[in-house]
Amino acid sequence: MKGKHNSPNRTLAEIGEFGLIGMLRDWLSSGDPRIVLGIGGDAAALEVSGERLLLATSDIQIEETHFRRRYATMEQIGWKAMAISLSDIAAMGGAPTYALVSLGLCPQLTEDEFGKLFAGLQRAASIHGAKIVGGNLAFSGNRILVDVTLLGEVERDKILRRAGAHPGDRIYVSGFPGQSAAGYAVLNRLDRERQTPFSELIRAHLEPQPRLALGRLLAERRLASACIDISDGLSQDLSRLCEASGVGAEISADRLPLSPELQALAGQLRLDPLQLALHGGEDYELLFAVRLEVPPEKLKALQRETGTPLTEIGRILPAEEGLWLQRSGKRARLEPRGWDHFRSQSEKQ
Amino acid sequence: MKGKHNSPNRTLAEIGEFGLIGMLRDWLSSGDPRIVLGIGGDAAALEVSGERLLLATSDIQIEETHFRRRYATMEQIGWKAMAISLSDIAAMGGAPTYALVSLGLCPQLTEDEFGKLFAGLQRAASIHGAKIVGGNLAFSGNRILVDVTLLGEVERDKILRRAGAHPGDRIYVSGFPGQSAAGYAVLNRLDRERQTPFSELIRAHLEPQPRLALGRLLAERRLASACIDISDGLSQDLSRLCEASGVGAEISADRLPLSPELQALAGQLRLDPLQLALHGGEDYELLFAVRLEVPPEKLKALQRETGTPLTEIGRILPAEEGLWLQRSGKRARLEPRGWDHFRSQSEKQ
Repeated sequence: MKGKHNSPNRTLAEIGEFGLIGMLRDWLSSGDPRIVLGIGGDAAALEVSGERLLLATSDIQIEETHFRRRYATMEQIGWKAMAISLSDIAAMGGAPTYALVSLGLCPQLTEDEFGKLFAGLQRAASIHGAKIVGGNLAFSGNRILVDVTLLGEVERDKILRRAGAHPGDRIYVSGFPGQSAAGYAVLNRLDRERQTPFSELIRAHLEPQPRLALGRLLAERRLASACIDISDGLSQDLSRLCEASGVGAEISADRLPLSPELQALAGQLRLDPLQLALHGGEDYELLFAVRLEVPPEKLKALQRETGTPLTEIGRILPAEEGLWLQRSGKRARLEPRGWDHFRSQSEKQ
Repeated sequence: MKGKHNSPNRTLAEIGEFGLIGMLRDWLSSGDPRIVLGIGGDAAALEVSGERLLLATSDIQIEETHFRRRYATMEQIGWKAMAISLSDIAAMGGAPTYALVSLGLCPQLTEDEFGKLFAGLQRAASIHGAKIVGGNLAFSGNRILVDVTLLGEVERDKILRRAGAHPGDRIYVSGFPGQSAAGYAVLNRLDRERQTPFSELIRAHLEPQPRLALGRLLAERRLASACIDISDGLSQDLSRLCEASGVGAEISADRLPLSPELQALAGQLRLDPLQLALHGGEDYELLFAVRLEVPPEKLKALQRETGTPLTEIGRILPAEEGLWLQRSGKRARLEPRGWDHFRSQSEKQ
C-alpha cells in the first residue's frame, strides 16, 4: 500500500494536501474499464447499466460522536465507515459498485495513520467488490471525520424495500442483535485485562460485517417481502419497516438470539441482555419479513450458504395492532427506541 | 419550506435526530418518477440511463476551514456547498441529477438556522435541475460541516476532460478570476461600512455561480478540447489541465480579465490584482482549451447565449516548454500555486 511513499512518521502538514492527493491516486489506480475517469478529475465518470436501479447512500462518522481513537485503530475507523454504507446496500439487496470518500483530517496525523485509515476503507470496499473512485480531503480541526458515499446497483424487480410486509409474514433477523452495543459497553466499562473474554463483542462494535451475501440472495430468490438493516436498533428499525409496510408486528423475547458472550457480559455488568438486543443499535444485521408460504427449508439453505445465522423472531400483524413484545407468554407494548445523537449530546451538556 | 414545523427557535437538541429526519422528508418529497426510493430508506434507488456516463463528485465544507458563520449566512453556506459540486459537474459538461447531503450539526442550532442551511442547498440544486435524494445527519461538536455528493450524467462521447488540449489551442476563461479571493479579502480586512462598494466580490466568494450552461454547451457543441474548473486557482488548475493533456501553456497577464471592483480593492489594500486572478482560488469559473480551427464567432455566440463573459487568455504549448506568464512583452515562468489547507493550517500553529 505504501509504494514509493515511505516516511511513515511524516505528518499530513508536512506532506501537504497535494502530496496526499498524489498518494491517493497511487493507491486507487484501477484497471476497471467501467471507470472512465477515476480519482483526480473534477468528478468520476462511470459506466452504469440502465437496466438496473442505481443505489446511493452516504454515512458520516465523526470522532467523539461515532468513534474514539482511544479504542479504535485507524484501520478499524476506516473499515467501519465503509461497512455502514455497505450495510445500507445489503439491506436493499444490491451489489456495491463505487465509493466516494470525504475525509476531514488533522494536520498532526502521520502518513502511517493516514495510510491505515485509508487501508481500512479500501479493504472493506474491495472485499465486497466496490471501488473508491473519488472524494476529497479537508482540514477538520481536531476531530477526524469520514464521510462515505457508496453507489450500488440492483435489478429493478428484485430490490428489497422496507415496504411490502404483510400480516402473517414471519420476521427473521440475521446474526446476534445487541453484539455491537455490548461491545461498546466492554470498551467503555471494563479495563483492558477484563476485556479478553469479550473479543467477539468488541469486534462486532469496531469491525462490523455487512450482510451483503445475505441481502443479494434474499433479493435474487425473492424470499423477503420487506427488509431493513438494524443500524439504529432492532426496535427502532422494526418500527420503521412496519411504518413503511403499513403493518404491526409481534416479537418474541424468548426467541431473540443472544450470544453467550452477550449473556456473560450482561451478567457481569448487570445489564438486561434483552434491552441490548432490542435497542442497542449499530448491529448492521438484516431484519426481514418472509411470506408464510415460503418453506422454512429455503431459509435454512440460505443460512448454510451464507454462513449467517438466521432466526425467526416474530410475526407481522395488521397495522391496527401496533408493536408487541411477547415474553414468557405475556404481551407488552414494544416501544421503539433508538440512539438520538442530538438529544443524547444535549443531555450531557 | 416550513410546512407544519413552525417553532423557528427550537434547537436541534429539542427537535431530535428523528424529528429532523421527518422535516427533511417533508422538504424533499418529489414527484420525480426516476426516484424509485428517495430519502428515508437505507439508500436512494434511482433510474439511470445506461447510454450516458454517470458522474459522481463529493466536496466537504467545514466551518472555520472553509467558511465562517461570522460573515456567511446559513443559506449562503448551504448554497456554496452545493455550488462547488455543481461546478465539478459543469467542468465535465454534465447535467446534475441527484445529490446526497451529509450534515454535521451542533445541537445549539435552531430550527430556523437548520431550515435556512437546507434551503440554500436545495435552492442551488433545484435551479440546476438536481434533486436531493438522501444523506444523513450527525452531531459534529461545535463546527458545522456539509458534505455534498452530487451525481450527474453526460453523453459518453461528449464528456469534457482535463486531457485533450493540443499545442496551438487557445485558452479561455469564463468570468473574472480572482473575484472570490478578493471577496475573501473584503470580508476579512474591511469593516462593514467599507465593504459596500465591493458587494460583487463578496457575492463571488459567498454565492458562487457554477457555470453549468457553459459546460453543457461546450460539450454539446464539442468546442473545448480540454476543460477544468479553477476552484483551486487559475495557475494551479491550468497546471493540472496541462499535466493531464501532456502540454505546456502560456498565459498573457495583459489579457486576464480583471473586474473594476477587483482593481479598486487591490488599489485600496495594496494587493497585486494579477496575483489574486492567477492564484486566488475558489472561483468556480471554467478554464478551457479551444482548437485553433474553431471560429472565434462560435465562442462569441456562446458568450451571448449563456450571458457569461469568455476571454481568450493564452495558448497551449508543447509539453517541453512548460508554463509561462507573458507580461508587457516579457516572459516569466508561471509557478502553479494553490491553497493547501494542511500546510496553511500547520503554519498557523
